[in-house]
Amino acid sequence: MTRTAHTNAPHMPHPLERLEQLLHADMLRVNAMIIERFQSDIPLIPRVAAYLIAAGGKRIRPLLTLAAAALADHADPAQNPVQKADGYAASVEFIHTATLLHDDVVDESEKRRGQDSANIVFGNQASVLVGDFLFSKSFELMVEGGSLRALDMLARASATIAEGEVLQMSLRGDVSMTRDQYMTIIECKTAALFRAATQVGGIVTGQSEDRIQALYDYGQNLGMCFQIADDMMDYASTEAAMGKNRGDDFREGKITLPVLIAMERAKTADETAFWNRVLKDKAQKDGDFDHAIVLIHQHGAMNETYSLCEYYAEKAKNALDVLTDKTLKDQGQGHSNHAQIIACLYDLVDFVVRRDR
Amino acid sequence: MTRTAHTNAPHMPHPLERLEQLLHADMLRVNAMIIERFQSDIPLIPRVAAYLIAAGGKRIRPLLTLAAAALADHADPAQNPVQKADGYAASVEFIHTATLLHDDVVDESEKRRGQDSANIVFGNQASVLVGDFLFSKSFELMVEGGSLRALDMLARASATIAEGEVLQMSLRGDVSMTRDQYMTIIECKTAALFRAATQVGGIVTGQSEDRIQALYDYGQNLGMCFQIADDMMDYASTEAAMGKNRGDDFREGKITLPVLIAMERAKTADETAFWNRVLKDKAQKDGDFDHAIVLIHQHGAMNETYSLCEYYAEKAKNALDVLTDKTLKDQGQGHSNHAQIIACLYDLVDFVVRRDR
Repeated sequence: MTRTAHTNAPHMPHPLERLEQLLHADMLRVNAMIIERFQSDIPLIPRVAAYLIAAGGKRIRPLLTLAAAALADHADPAQNPVQKADGYAASVEFIHTATLLHDDVVDESEKRRGQDSANIVFGNQASVLVGDFLFSKSFELMVEGGSLRALDMLARASATIAEGEVLQMSLRGDVSMTRDQYMTIIECKTAALFRAATQVGGIVTGQSEDRIQALYDYGQNLGMCFQIADDMMDYASTEAAMGKNRGDDFREGKITLPVLIAMERAKTADETAFWNRVLKDKAQKDGDFDHAIVLIHQHGAMNETYSLCEYYAEKAKNALDVLTDKTLKDQGQGHSNHAQIIACLYDLVDFVVRRDR
Repeated sequence: MTRTAHTNAPHMPHPLERLEQLLHADMLRVNAMIIERFQSDIPLIPRVAAYLIAAGGKRIRPLLTLAAAALADHADPAQNPVQKADGYAASVEFIHTATLLHDDVVDESEKRRGQDSANIVFGNQASVLVGDFLFSKSFELMVEGGSLRALDMLARASATIAEGEVLQMSLRGDVSMTRDQYMTIIECKTAALFRAATQVGGIVTGQSEDRIQALYDYGQNLGMCFQIADDMMDYASTEAAMGKNRGDDFREGKITLPVLIAMERAKTADETAFWNRVLKDKAQKDGDFDHAIVLIHQHGAMNETYSLCEYYAEKAKNALDVLTDKTLKDQGQGHSNHAQIIACLYDLVDFVVRRDR
C-alpha cells in the first residue's frame, strides 16, 4: 500500500466529516436517539452519559454502522434502508461508551479526550454503574431492532471486549508477553466492536452473505489499524492532538507493540534490565519515558509497528473492493451515493493509519 | 397474613431445598450451563466467576425461572417445557452475579456470603471486567433462547437494576431521603430481576397472559419482601447467619427503611443530631451502631418494617392463587407436580420474610 496523496491535501475535509455529511440526516436521527435513550429519572445518569457522549467523541462506530447500511441495495427509492440500522448504530455507541467508562476505572485514568475523565469528575462508583446502565440500554435498543442475528453478533462482541480487557489487565507489566497475546488483546478489545458495527449494518439491511462478510472484514481490519495506531501514538515524538496523554500506556505498564518489538531486539543486559525495571517492577523515574522512546526508535520498532498497521490497512481496503464492485452496478435512489461512501471508507483507513503524524 | 405453622416445623426442609429437589434434573442442566458459559480462554475469568458463583449462592433467581416454567400446561408428557427456560435461568443468574461483582466494588465491600468478596481477592479491576463479561454472556444466552419478549424483559430489568444502584449511591448519607425513594431503590435493584425471572419462565413456555401477569406479580412482591427483609437483617439483634455483615449498611451510610422510620420518629434534637452525624457526616464512633439499634427498636421501626414486608408477602401469595386455580385443573405428566411447586413458592414467601428470625 502506498499512501494516497489526496487524503493529505490541505483543506480536504477529514473522511469522518465527509462521511457524516453524506449520512447527515441519518446521523441526526441516531444522535437524537442516543440522547433520548440515556435519559433517566435518576439525574446523575444523563449527567454522566452526556459528559462522555457529548465530549467530542468522533462517533466513528455508529457512523460505520450507518455507512454499512447505506451500502444496501434498495429498489424502492422511497425506502431508506439506513433507518433500519438506527437502533443498532446507537447501541454500538452505547457499548463503546460503557467500555470507556469502565476502562477509565480499571486504568485509573485521569484524562479522556482531552478533559478530566468521568471517574475523576463523578467517581468510580458512578462510572461503573452508569456504564452498566448504558450497556443495558444498548441491549434494549437491539431488542427493539428485532434481528436476533444482529443481537447475537453484538452480544458476542461485548463478551469479547471484556475478555480482551481482562487479558490486557492480566498481562500488565508482564515482560514475557508475546506478539500473539498482543494481537489477541487488540482484536478483542477494539476490532471486535468495529467488525460488529459494520457487519450489523449489512445484516439488518438484508445484504448478501458476501457483502456481510466483506463488511465484517473491513471493520475487523480497520479496528486492528485503529488500535495499533493508537498504541503508536503513545510513543509519538510529539504530544498527539487526540486528547490522549502520551506515555499513559508506559506509565500503566501496558505493553504494546512498539515496546514488545524494542524488548525483543534489546541488545544489552542494560536494556533488558531497563524494561524490567520500568514495566515489571514499575519503578519509573524521570527520563525513563524519553529513554524508552529512544530505544523504540533505535530498534526500528516504530517503523515495524507502522508496517503492521499498513498490512491491516491493505486488508481493510481489499474488503472494500468486494463492496465496490456491487456498488458500481447499483444505481438506485436515496443513498445512491454508494461510491462516495466507499471513497470515504477508503480514505478513513488512511486517516486512521496516519492520524498521529 | 398469618404465619403458616408448617414452614417453621422442625426437620421441614427449607422451601428452596424442596424446590431444588422438585426441579433437580432441570437445575442440574442449568448449573452445567452456567459453568460451561463462564469458561474463557482468559484463565482469570472462570476463576473470578467460579469464586462467586460456586460460593454458596442459593440460586434463588434461576430456580424461580424454572419453577415458573414448570407451571406451564403441557399436553405432551414427553416434552419437558422447563427445558425452554434453561438459558434464561442461567442468564438471570449471570445478571445477578455481574451486579454482585459491581456492587461490591461500588460499596467497597469486604465480605460476601461469609467470605472475602471478589474485589478483595482479585481486585476492583477484575471485578468490573468479569462483571461485564458475565453480563455480556447473559445476553448471549438470551439471544440463543430466541424470545424477543423475554430478551426485552431482561434487558429492561438490567437497566432498571443499574438505575436503582445509581439512585441508592446518589442518596447515600442523605438524611432527607423519602420512603418513596427507598421503595423505588428496592424495586429497581431487587424486585426488577425477581419479577423478570418469574415472568420470563412463563413467557418462554407460552403460558397465558393472566398467568404471565401473576408470575410477574409473584416475583415483584417476593423481591420487595426479600430486600426489605435483607435491610432488616442489617439491624437484627444477633449476627445473621446469611453471610451478611450486620451493620454494613449503617457503616456505608446506606439509608434503609428501619433507619428512615426511626429518623421520622426522632423525638429530640439529640436524636436528629445523632443520625446527621453518623449518616450524613459519616463521623461514626464505637457504640454508634448499638445506639442506632436502640433507637430503631425504641420507635417500633423494626415492627413497622416487618409489617410492610408482610404486606408484600400477602400480595405475593395472592398472585399464587391465580396460578393455583389453573394448576389444580391440570393433570399432565412430567412436571405434574404443579401443586408441590406452588406450595414451595408459597412457603418461600414465608421463609424470605422470616429468614432473619
